[in-house]
This record gives sequence, C-alpha cells and structure tokens, in this order.
Amino acid sequence: MIISKESIENHNSSKLVSHKKKYELLNTTLSESSIEVNAIIKKIQEFQVAIPSWALGTGGTRFGRFAGGGEPSTLEQKIEDVGLLHSINQSSGAISLHIPWDIPSDANKIKNLAASFGLKFDAVNSNTFQDQKNQKFSYKFGSLSNTDANARKQAIEHNIEVIKQGQALGSKSLTVWLADGSSFPGQQHFRRAFERTLDSLKEIYAALPSDWSIFTEHKAYEPAFYSSVVSDWGSSLLFAQKLGSKASCLVDLGHHLPNANIEQIVSRLMMEGKLGGFHFNDSKYSDDDLTVGSIKPYQLFLIFNELVDGMTSSEVKNPELGWMIDASHNIKDPLEDLLQSVEAIMIAYAQALIIDRKALENAQLNNDVVTAQEILQNAYRTDVRSLVAEARLLSGAALEPISFYRAQKIRQMLINERGTNSSASGL
Amino acid sequence: MIISKESIENHNSSKLVSHKKKYELLNTTLSESSIEVNAIIKKIQEFQVAIPSWALGTGGTRFGRFAGGGEPSTLEQKIEDVGLLHSINQSSGAISLHIPWDIPSDANKIKNLAASFGLKFDAVNSNTFQDQKNQKFSYKFGSLSNTDANARKQAIEHNIEVIKQGQALGSKSLTVWLADGSSFPGQQHFRRAFERTLDSLKEIYAALPSDWSIFTEHKAYEPAFYSSVVSDWGSSLLFAQKLGSKASCLVDLGHHLPNANIEQIVSRLMMEGKLGGFHFNDSKYSDDDLTVGSIKPYQLFLIFNELVDGMTSSEVKNPELGWMIDASHNIKDPLEDLLQSVEAIMIAYAQALIIDRKALENAQLNNDVVTAQEILQNAYRTDVRSLVAEARLLSGAALEPISFYRAQKIRQMLINERGTNSSASGL
Amino acid sequence: MIISKESIENHNSSKLVSHKKKYELLNTTLSESSIEVNAIIKKIQEFQVAIPSWALGTGGTRFGRFAGGGEPSTLEQKIEDVGLLHSINQSSGAISLHIPWDIPSDANKIKNLAASFGLKFDAVNSNTFQDQKNQKFSYKFGSLSNTDANARKQAIEHNIEVIKQGQALGSKSLTVWLADGSSFPGQQHFRRAFERTLDSLKEIYAALPSDWSIFTEHKAYEPAFYSSVVSDWGSSLLFAQKLGSKASCLVDLGHHLPNANIEQIVSRLMMEGKLGGFHFNDSKYSDDDLTVGSIKPYQLFLIFNELVDGMTSSEVKNPELGWMIDASHNIKDPLEDLLQSVEAIMIAYAQALIIDRKALENAQLNNDVVTAQEILQNAYRTDVRSLVAEARLLSGAALEPISFYRAQKIRQMLINERGTNSSASGL
Amino acid sequence: MIISKESIENHNSSKLVSHKKKYELLNTTLSESSIEVNAIIKKIQEFQVAIPSWALGTGGTRFGRFAGGGEPSTLEQKIEDVGLLHSINQSSGAISLHIPWDIPSDANKIKNLAASFGLKFDAVNSNTFQDQKNQKFSYKFGSLSNTDANARKQAIEHNIEVIKQGQALGSKSLTVWLADGSSFPGQQHFRRAFERTLDSLKEIYAALPSDWSIFTEHKAYEPAFYSSVVSDWGSSLLFAQKLGSKASCLVDLGHHLPNANIEQIVSRLMMEGKLGGFHFNDSKYSDDDLTVGSIKPYQLFLIFNELVDGMTSSEVKNPELGWMIDASHNIKDPLEDLLQSVEAIMIAYAQALIIDRKALENAQLNNDVVTAQEILQNAYRTDVRSLVAEARLLSGAALEPISFYRAQKIRQMLINERGTNSSASGL
Repeated sequence: MIISKESIENHNSSKLVSHKKKYELLNTTLSESSIEVNAIIKKIQEFQVAIPSWALGTGGTRFGRFAGGGEPSTLEQKIEDVGLLHSINQSSGAISLHIPWDIPSDANKIKNLAASFGLKFDAVNSNTFQDQKNQKFSYKFGSLSNTDANARKQAIEHNIEVIKQGQALGSKSLTVWLADGSSFPGQQHFRRAFERTLDSLKEIYAALPSDWSIFTEHKAYEPAFYSSVVSDWGSSLLFAQKLGSKASCLVDLGHHLPNANIEQIVSRLMMEGKLGGFHFNDSKYSDDDLTVGSIKPYQLFLIFNELVDGMTSSEVKNPELGWMIDASHNIKDPLEDLLQSVEAIMIAYAQALIIDRKALENAQLNNDVVTAQEILQNAYRTDVRSLVAEARLLSGAALEPISFYRAQKIRQMLINERGTNSSASGL
Repeated sequence: MIISKESIENHNSSKLVSHKKKYELLNTTLSESSIEVNAIIKKIQEFQVAIPSWALGTGGTRFGRFAGGGEPSTLEQKIEDVGLLHSINQSSGAISLHIPWDIPSDANKIKNLAASFGLKFDAVNSNTFQDQKNQKFSYKFGSLSNTDANARKQAIEHNIEVIKQGQALGSKSLTVWLADGSSFPGQQHFRRAFERTLDSLKEIYAALPSDWSIFTEHKAYEPAFYSSVVSDWGSSLLFAQKLGSKASCLVDLGHHLPNANIEQIVSRLMMEGKLGGFHFNDSKYSDDDLTVGSIKPYQLFLIFNELVDGMTSSEVKNPELGWMIDASHNIKDPLEDLLQSVEAIMIAYAQALIIDRKALENAQLNNDVVTAQEILQNAYRTDVRSLVAEARLLSGAALEPISFYRAQKIRQMLINERGTNSSASGL
Repeated sequence: MIISKESIENHNSSKLVSHKKKYELLNTTLSESSIEVNAIIKKIQEFQVAIPSWALGTGGTRFGRFAGGGEPSTLEQKIEDVGLLHSINQSSGAISLHIPWDIPSDANKIKNLAASFGLKFDAVNSNTFQDQKNQKFSYKFGSLSNTDANARKQAIEHNIEVIKQGQALGSKSLTVWLADGSSFPGQQHFRRAFERTLDSLKEIYAALPSDWSIFTEHKAYEPAFYSSVVSDWGSSLLFAQKLGSKASCLVDLGHHLPNANIEQIVSRLMMEGKLGGFHFNDSKYSDDDLTVGSIKPYQLFLIFNELVDGMTSSEVKNPELGWMIDASHNIKDPLEDLLQSVEAIMIAYAQALIIDRKALENAQLNNDVVTAQEILQNAYRTDVRSLVAEARLLSGAALEPISFYRAQKIRQMLINERGTNSSASGL
Repeated sequence: MIISKESIENHNSSKLVSHKKKYELLNTTLSESSIEVNAIIKKIQEFQVAIPSWALGTGGTRFGRFAGGGEPSTLEQKIEDVGLLHSINQSSGAISLHIPWDIPSDANKIKNLAASFGLKFDAVNSNTFQDQKNQKFSYKFGSLSNTDANARKQAIEHNIEVIKQGQALGSKSLTVWLADGSSFPGQQHFRRAFERTLDSLKEIYAALPSDWSIFTEHKAYEPAFYSSVVSDWGSSLLFAQKLGSKASCLVDLGHHLPNANIEQIVSRLMMEGKLGGFHFNDSKYSDDDLTVGSIKPYQLFLIFNELVDGMTSSEVKNPELGWMIDASHNIKDPLEDLLQSVEAIMIAYAQALIIDRKALENAQLNNDVVTAQEILQNAYRTDVRSLVAEARLLSGAALEPISFYRAQKIRQMLINERGTNSSASGL
C-alpha cells in the first residue's frame, strides 16, 4: 500500500499549532545558547537508518513465535513496508537485505521498485548460521572457521555470491555476522579457529569491489554458548587490521557482556578509523533485540555523543558509517516497533547535537566533573521531540508517526491485503 | 533398541582390573578418614535423575537448529531412549513428560512400557508458553497472568488436564514453568500480574490430588526480556507460601542473574521447607542449557554440598526432592550429552558426600576460614570417578558409559531404525 | 555558614523570566492533558530526601581517598551542611546519623540546631561493619551472625544504644546494614548464619519503641565476596516476615546483581507491605555509589513509577517510606554531588507523577504494548525541570541550585572557615 | 624467621608412606596413557610464582580492615616472609616490589638478603593511583592521562624512577597499572585520554633498559566507576602495539566484566605475541581478589590449558611470561592464603600438562565435541595433588604446606617477633 502525501498533510495540519508552540520555544531557548538550530535540523533530516528486511515480520524466541497478521512474504512486499515507513518518517530511506532470504529474481525491477519509494540498498548480509535446504556442507560446527575446508569454501562462495547480489542492487558493503564459536570448553582451538576465519575472510575480501567495505560484527555469545570467534571489539579489530583498509567493525548494541561501556568501544574503534556501522536495538539482559531506546535511553545518548564527536572531529579519520536497526519484534507490530526505534534514534542524535562541546571540552580540561555532567544532562533532559518533529515536517513526513500509522489503520489494510497467515521469510 | 545385560558385562570385565586398582586405593584412603564408603555407594546407587522427554532430540536456538539422526518421534521411542540410558548408567530411572508434546493414547500401555525399562514417571510439565494449533486463546501476552480471563481459564484447564495425564501414569507432581512476563517497561502491571497468576495457581492447586505437589519455577528472563512474573526465588517463594503446603519451588541452574550465589538460594529454600526440585544444566552467560558440569563444576559441587546438608540435617523439614536434567543438546548427540550430565551430577554428589561435615562445622564455628576451604577442596579435588563407577558396577550398569555407548554404536543403530530425518516432537 | 533569604531571592529574580517562559508552556501542555499541575507541585514540595551524615565528606575506594577542602569535622558542621543544602533546594529537610561516627554530646542542643535549619532526624544507622578502637570483640567474622555469642551480644547492644541515641533526637527508625557474610565457600553455614542473625534481630526488635520501625538492607556482595547474610530482597523479606509488623526492607539501588529489575523488586515489597525505605545512588558495575541519576536515569524513573503507583493505590498497604541518598563522593564536591542527586530524584518523581495512569492501565489491560511504552516515554521525555524549579521557587529555594552554590562560592567559604585539611569523621 | 631443612624433612617423612601410595598409582595410570610424568614434574618444579610485597599483610575493603598479627613492616621482613613461603613450597622464588611502598635504602643489601632465600626480583610496580605525602601534583583526576601536563610529567618520572629501583635489584620488567579513568559520563574525553596516556607511556618506554619489558594491565572498572583508560584487552593491546616490541599486556583474572571468557583473551594475546604476564586471584562478583582457585577452579584450569598450549606451540611467538599472585587477604592469614593460592596454581598447571593434546586436536578437527570435553574433564578430574607434592618433595619443599605451616606455629612465632600491631606498609 502507498501512503498519500495528502493524508500526511492532513495529519500534520491537525497537529501543527500544538507542535509549533513547543518548537518555537525550544528554538528560542537553543538559539539563546548559540546553538545553530537550522544546521541541526538539516543533519537530522539527512540521517537515514536502514531497515533490515528480516525486521518486517514477527520475530520469535527459541520457545516459540506468536505471528501477527499482514506480514510481507515477498521481497517486493518487504520493500513496500520499508517504503511505507519512509513515507511516514522520511528517515528510513534504505533497506538492508539478507541473503538467501531475499534473493531478487529480477534485480533491476527490484531496484526500480525501491527507487520508487526513495529507498537505497544498504549493506547486504550473508547467512552462514543456518543450513539451507539441500546445502551440501553443514554449518553446525561453523562456517568460515569450520575445520572442514569444504564447509569453509562453501561459506566463502556464499559471501561472494552475496556481494554479487548486492552489486546488482547498488549496495556498497557486506556485513558478516558469524555464529561461529563453541559451546563447550575444548570444542574449538581458539587460535586456529581465528586463523581459519581470517583466511576465509581474506578470500572474501579479495572478491570485494574496489568501492565496497566489509564489516565484521562481534558478539560475545549466542548461538555459541562458550566462545565466539568474533567475540568482542578487540577480536573484530584484529580481523579488520589484518584484512586491510576496506575492512571495519560493526557494533550491535546487544552483543556485549553485562555492564560493558559501549560508548567507549565506539570511541576506540573510531580512533582507529575502524568503525564501519551500527546495529541499533536495546536490551536489559542479553541480545534481547528490543526496540531502540526502550531500556537504556541514556546509554543511547552517550553513544551518539561519541558518534557526533568522532564524525565532526578533524582528528578522527573514520569512514562514513552505516546505520541499521536490528531488532526482533516478538510482541509488537513490527512497523510500529520500527517507528518507535527510529524515533528513539533521532531523539538521541538530536540530543547529542545540542551538546555544548566547547564548554564540555573546557570542563574536561579543568576536571570540572560536575559541570561536565551538567552539560550532558542538560542536553539529554531537553525535550527535543519538537526538533525532530520539525525535521520531519520539513521533509514531508508525519509529525506524529505512530498516531498517523494508527489513525490510518495501516496494519488492518495490510492484513486485508495479505491475510493473517502471511509469513515473512527468514527465521 | 534394548541393551543386553551381556554386552554390559563384557564391557565391565574388560575395564575391571584398571577400575578396581583405582577404586581400592580410594576406598582405603576414604576409609582411613572414617568415611563409610559403602553407605555412600548405596546413596549414589539410589540417586535417580529424571530425563525430560524433550531432551532426547536435538535442541536449537532462535537462529536455527541442526538436527541429528535417529531422534525419537513418538512417546514410545522417547521412553525407549530413557530406558537405554538407564540400562547404561542405572541412574536415569525416571522420565518427565511434557504435555501436550507427549500425550499417551493409551496410558496403561505407556506405563507398562516404562516399567519394562525400570522407569517411573516423574513430574509432568505443562506448556503455556506456546500456542498449539487451533488453540482458542493465545498466550502471546501471558497465560496464568493474562489480562484476558479466557486465556487464564484455558491455561488453568490445561494444567488440570496435565495433572490428569500425570495421574494416569503415576506421576506425583506438576511443574509449572511460566513464560509470562513483559518485554517492555509499562507493558505489565507487576502487582496485578502477580495477583492474577496467584489466583490462577490457586485454581490449579485446588485440583491437585492429595498426594501431589506443585512446583513453581523461577526465571529471571527469556522469553520475556524485561520482567518475568516468577522472576526469582523470592517471587517463587511468595507463591509457594500463599498456595500452601503442597506448593514448593523448583530451581533451574540457568535461570539466575549473572554471579548469583545459587547454593545460598538452595539453602534458603530448604530452610523454609520449600525446595521442591531441581533442573540441572550448566551455563556461562544466560540460560545456555549446556551439559551439567561442563562450565562451572565447582558451583555444582557447592550446590550438592547444600543439598546433602539439607537432606541430612534434622533441623531441616524439606519435602523429598525431584531431580531432573533440563538441557538443550544443540551440537551433541543428546544421549551422549545426557550420559555426561548424569555422570557430572553423580561426581558432584559423591564429592559432597565425602565432605567431613563434623570438621567443617568445627572450622565454621572457629572461623577457621582456611581450614573450611581446605575441607571443601579436599573433597572436591578427590577423584571420585571410581566410586561412582563402583556404584554403577554394583547396579549392573556400565563402568564407562560413554565408551560403552560408542563401542556399541548405539546412535548408528537408532539411525538405522528411525532414519536421519526423524524428529523429536516439541520445540 | 548560613544562606540568606536575600541571596536566594536575588538569584531567583535573575532567572525568573527564562524560568517562567518554560514553566508556563509546560503548565499549559500538561493541563491540556488533564494533569493537575498544582497538585503535583505540592507533592514535589513535600518530598524530602534525607542526607546521611557520612555523605558530607569526600569518599574513597580501597585504593585511596583524595580529600577535598572544607569538610565538616563535627556533628554540628554536618548539620550545618545539610541545612545549607536545604536552604538551597528545600528538599533535603532531614539528616540520617551514623553511630558511632555522630554521637551527640548534648542531644537537645543538636536537636535545636537541626530545627533551626528546618531539619528532622531520619533513620539512625548502626555500624557493625568496622571495629572501633578498644572494642572488645571483633566483627572480622560477623556481627549479628557471628558464631561467637559475645560478639553478637555486643552488636545487639550497640544497635539498642543506637536506638536510644535516635530517640533522644526524634528519629523513628533504625537501619541495619550488615556486612556479615562470607568470602569463601565453606566459611559460613548459610542456614545457621541466617538463624543467628534472626535471633539477634529479634532482641533488637524487642527493644524497639512502639512507634519505631526497623529496616533490613540487602546487598549481594561487598565487603563479603562470596555470600551475604542479607543477600537479596527474598532474604530481607524473610527477616521482615519473621520479625513482625515493625520490620520492613530497605532498598539500596547499588546492592543488586547485574541486570536486576529493581523496579519489580520495589513492586513486590510494596505488594507485601514491606518496603520501608530507599537508599538512592547510581552505578554502572557494582555498588559504585555514584550521583543519583548519573548512569541509569530511565531506571530511576521506572522505580518512581512503581513508588507512585504503590503509594497512591488503595490496594497497597505499605508503611510510609523513608528516603535517603547513599552515595560516595570520591571526585566531586560532596555538596554539589548531593544537589545533583536531589535534582535527579525530583525530576524522576515529577516524571512519574505526570504519567497518565488511567491510559496506562487501559493499555495494559488491552496488551497494547506500543501504547504502554509511549505513555511512559512521553512522561519521561517531557522536560520537567521547570516544574521542579517552580516547586523550589514556591518553597523559597533556588531556581538553579548548582549555579547558586557556585555563584555564592560556598565551598571556598567553607574552606576559609574549616581549612583544607578538615576531615569528615567516618570511613 | 628461617625454616630449617630438618623441620621440612621431618614433616615429609611423617607423610611419605601415604604420599607414595597415591603418587605411585597416579604415576602408573598416567604412564599407561603415555604421559611423561618425569618431564611434567620437572616443569612443575621450575614453575615459580612471584609474591607481591603488598600481599604479605592483611588487606581491606573500603569499609574497613581487620588487621592480623605479625605482619611485616619493613622490606626486609617482607623478603623474609617470601623466603619463608619459598622454603615451604619451593615455588615462590620471586618477589615483586611496589614503589614507593618498598624503596630499599641499600639495594645491594636487599639483593643479597633476597638471594640468601633463593629469591629473585620480578616485575616492579609503580603507583600512581594514590597521592603520596608532599606530592606536588595530585592524581585525583588521573596520572599518565591527566589533562594537566605537570601531573603527567610527575607520573612519568615516577615510573622511570621505579625502573631505576628495579634495575638496582635485578628486575627486568615494569608493570603499569593505571587507576586512570572516569566515574561519570562526560568527565573524560575517551580518545584524548587514550592519547595522553600513550604519549606518557612512550616516554617511559624510551627510558626502558634494552633487556626490559613493560606491561600494561587492563581493568574494566574500579576505582574509576564509569570508564577506565586501559579498560579491556583490546585497549591494552592497542597500547602494546603502538609502543613496540618491549611492550605487552598483563592479565589480572579479576579485571573483567561478568561472564568474560578469559581463556580466549589469553589465547588472543598469545596469538599476537603480546601476553606479558599474569596476576592470579579469584573472584565471584568483581575484583574480589580472593585466593586463587577458590571460586572458579575450572576456569583456572582452562586458562592454563591455553597457557600450556601457547607456551609449547611452535606457531606462537610470545615472550616468556611473568607469573604473580595479586590477592587481598582480608580474613585469612596472608601466608596461608598465599600457600593455598600457589597450590591451586600448581594443580591447575599440572592438570593442563596431562591433557592429551594430540587426542584433543583430533577431536577438535573432527568436531567430536563430546570427546573434546571428555579429554579436558579427564585431566581436570584427575587428582594431581600427589604429582604436585612429588615435585615439592624433589625440590626439598614440604609435602603438605599448610599442615607444615600450622604445625610449626609460624604465625605465632611471627607475632612473637613482630607484635600484634605491626603493619605492612601500603594500602
């Protein structure tokens, strides 16, 4: 289904007065503190978060899955869903495909379809954590790190195939998330598993087009419950260092040990020019894949503080970053969940943009801890929702995405179109 | 398939000389410390760990499942598998069923089949964490705690039905593990969810036969990622207190927050006479459901130290305990995994039995911390494998279960019988 | 030193215009959502957080302490410092003493001094985690749980003495935080340690005046590194249940295992009518005792959500709560740190007060998870600082406490008065 | 005091018969599995663990310290204490000094004293986490990372001074543990703090004698409670990479986030040729600094599995390692605690040495997870205490160190000599 411009305009005019009142006061307040509000709004407008194709259907846990209705069951429908999100918030202008779940039969047609919604193709994702039907060699005991050269070769070729699929669509990067690891002490020789993986990655790297990047994504555990080959940012950085300049690291917020200071990891990787991209989500315990910002919004803000610092500092030579949501919508409407996630990202980004960095630097140099905290908290406690809404308004998106989505009864229309038993391919 | 007595005897005679040499030295050493070795061996022989029906097939994670071959696909085959384990180690003399995965069409026939392998039916388990086909009300938002009275009623009736199934087979207890909880702040009203659950449990409790017990099983998180209704031992104890004397708490080793002192929780629950049973497994990060003793064997020993203390002290009035393994065999042959788990349990139990409790009490009273540690470590560092093997020998089981299982090529025979694509019902 | 009314009025008039602009828009916005702003402001004004006497000096870690200047070295000076805070924010109208660090030589004089600053005496705290000079029996191996009856007796008598000191000053409750526990497996018999502690507490309970309460405070670890006697809310609740109606539980935010859902614990204790009080602070890793709200402000808000719910629901029969900050100011000026802490508490409380509870209940009943989240986030994302400031304004406190404190050069004046080497008694 | 050879011989002859019975059976059993027992015993004899000078007195927590008696109060007495330990176990042949706590007034005399006990001087440790009396610039806000160039310079010079002190005594390495970090978000600019630290380390590195090494020691938190400059192995490795070949990383077991797979970190660092040394201790929650092997003995074994693998593989080019205990003896006699720690290390090392590495490699290559686990568990479950005791016997040490220490009433003699109020310098 397609969202009409008119429906958005109608929504916006009904909310305009109330919005403007808040926005204007905020604008005044920020401007009084010498913050260039228009420049910030422009940055917010430009910030685009890719939606992964697997996030458009209901997710599940190992204990089961409670499907919702109207899920997209074809790649075309998935693109439509992202297009729909993008119409509503104008911040989801990219889609990240997962191969083999989303192999297009006609790449050009798919590319045109995406373009019709204003969507680009972000990083493509390979899958060597599951066995596909009729797959020759199993990944039960690993893919790129497998002790069996045949399984490794198959996994390497799959990744190269994924690159080709991505090229046809205009992607510029490959994300490699490995489930490889071990569940029991002794199962795997740590060093040899690392070396086998490195050798495999080198072959994939060699097949990378000159304008492409490859991201390694670390994860402490799950589905391997004792060790992971790419277990932490240190391991991920070693791979990126050994592979070369086109390789960098991808950070997923849910892939760390309890209490990890993720913002410092972000800073370390940017310092080394090796932060490639981000998988946004939130979690309380483990890789819970919850809605972004639903559990630890202050951590999200602190991460954006580092990102903004790293992206704006002339001392940091980091490649451009890829932004993506990676969540599992077990009990929410996936589209609503994604709208909430994008909103939380935009809020954190806006808050990071209004930090008084000069004053902060000064407080840091003088070890004025109280003031440094006040500066961050001042930005964080500011209600920037009207700022983000203003950016949406200017981009032709809806002032209040969730309200709009509900008022338009979009889920019901999708169910009418696709039925209650449609099922997103994938997990 | 059935293990012949003869094959076990042949295995044992080939291992006997080496076994006896070790056992005799251990026997002498222990006896010199006034330990009554024969009494301990008897206790080890009597200790029976129930095998849950769902643990006989390959498990999986939310990212996929790599099936093995020869899995049991009927209840009869599951009972055969447990019978097979019991023939090999004589320590797995019970099976714990999961309804609706294991509903017997003819209870008597199933009972007789189990009896023919020397097996009893331990606790029956209800399942309200998944929706079954054609189920009227969904458990997506909870079962016994659901805000919808219809869903609660359905879940209550299911539990009562499970009791009936269990009665027909000779079970004496019901284990209620609830997936109920919330994944986002605000989703659930904690107190009301507790109260609804309590009201539901009261109805189930009322349907409990007079000689039955009901166990509530706490879990900190998963599949709910923000809160669980029965989140910790404190909540579980509140339910048991409010329900009455037939209610007690079940401890699953993987269901705690990082760094939890589980052995103290065991002590607390026994102190209150409210420890009902145990789900054994091991984990490094989360509810990893790994082979018992594969990650933290010293913790397992410390837990058995508390169990032995509580079971032998006249000051403690705790009901008899139900023992069960609850693991997920993602990358191992499930039967081998279970043999390793039972062995680890027996070793920890044996080590706990040879602790010099008089000396320990003395060291505790005198705050002689070094000696208290030495006493525990002395028991733990003792190689009690020959003691456990001797108990098996006396019970007619195999001296070396895994070696025996492999030498007999049992998995290959099961594959021949059942094929490579058979699949255990359940998850 | 004493803060003049005039200096506060001068500060406030200079900030008034800017404040009023923000406050009025917020007032309008909230009123449009049928929120009774005046009633909320009244609640904020009434909310008083006690300052513990030990929090007025620089704290330290086991690796050292970096003293600041102008620390209070007498009880009189500590009371002055709290008075100073209270003049600035009108929200710190109570002091919580620690015996034996703060024994008054003349109780009446001290009481009058406190009254002159508008301060009450909140819970008194006993100390059995350190040995005092010339103490007869050591607490090295425990106090109320010690295996030596003499040490227990001494600790009991100390607690009774603390009650007497508190009575003389008008306190109405005793907080018992026990360092008792063990650092090595085997050191302590869990059950007997619990029982000895319970027996000791019963003697203290018997000495409690009829209008007094006693709080037990749980802590997972530190200074005991293997087990604590009052390790978790479950253990704390057992003590409170066994002691009687005057006993309840105190929650310190830093005393839990990683990832604990503290807000649910708060709900459980209130459900049982056994939440007695709160120690506010914040932490990322352990019992870090950082400024309230500096690490996990959303968690703080969620806790206040439970507190407001429990305090306003007619279904909950919980005693009135005692509020206290318990932080360690290692690298900040303690008074500035306390001002930041109180501000963070007030913000979280105000956010919890503007939650639309009717709508939330409705969303919960309908399992509308997205809306439930939106409702909480809407309250949390609202910039309520002007609401809190308005409450301060009405109470005669400073609109911007930290700015005021700095502009008045209060620390410098304290240093001039007390020197750079004064030292708060205590740790 | 000095332990006479005779007293050890008397002790050993009284234990000899019982020892030999156990040792011989173990010898036979291991030899039957083609394990070269004599070679292993030789390795155990050669393995020497340094004792840090600060570990000879009673430790404490931030809540207090409960001193024991007979503590060494001079450097000479500390050396005597290590000499005493070494006489008893012949495995503690080195001492690690801490400057400024242990500055020798006459280096040669101290060197000769140590030599008379058969002791070498291992790594020297600098201290920039505390302010010393009359120190010009404070480390309250950092040392090598301080924003104030004066404080950095002072810290650099201190480290160079420590090197000189170490040279005079024959040390060959410097351990730099930094408390530098931040306790609040915003306090420190992560990247600039890293860079300042790197610049400071470069100056120290430049002053390093050609045959010296420098170790950076990572720690996740404490005493900084939000971030550490050398927070994890990834950061530590970055420093070592950037400094040069004389720089490597030191691993302290207690300095990681919950659930960290430390053995994999060990493998990673050795793979990169950057593991410099080890601080042994144990912990359940945090940096608890408990007796080695008292909480997680299996983890210790798995770490030694990696160490033995890395030290024996021709593929690994790692420098020779420095071994040290770093524990805090809060409630035990420090010397007994150290004897227990060394024993635990030797047991884990011996167990790692008897792993059948060929078979393990084979199981790994074949993904025979069950067998891989069996191989590790077989080594771990073996009671190798008699092997370790035999190594001691051959080296002229006591068969049962703790028994010997107690029978000789050594603590009482130290108290008689030094009094009950002597106090180890340091924390």
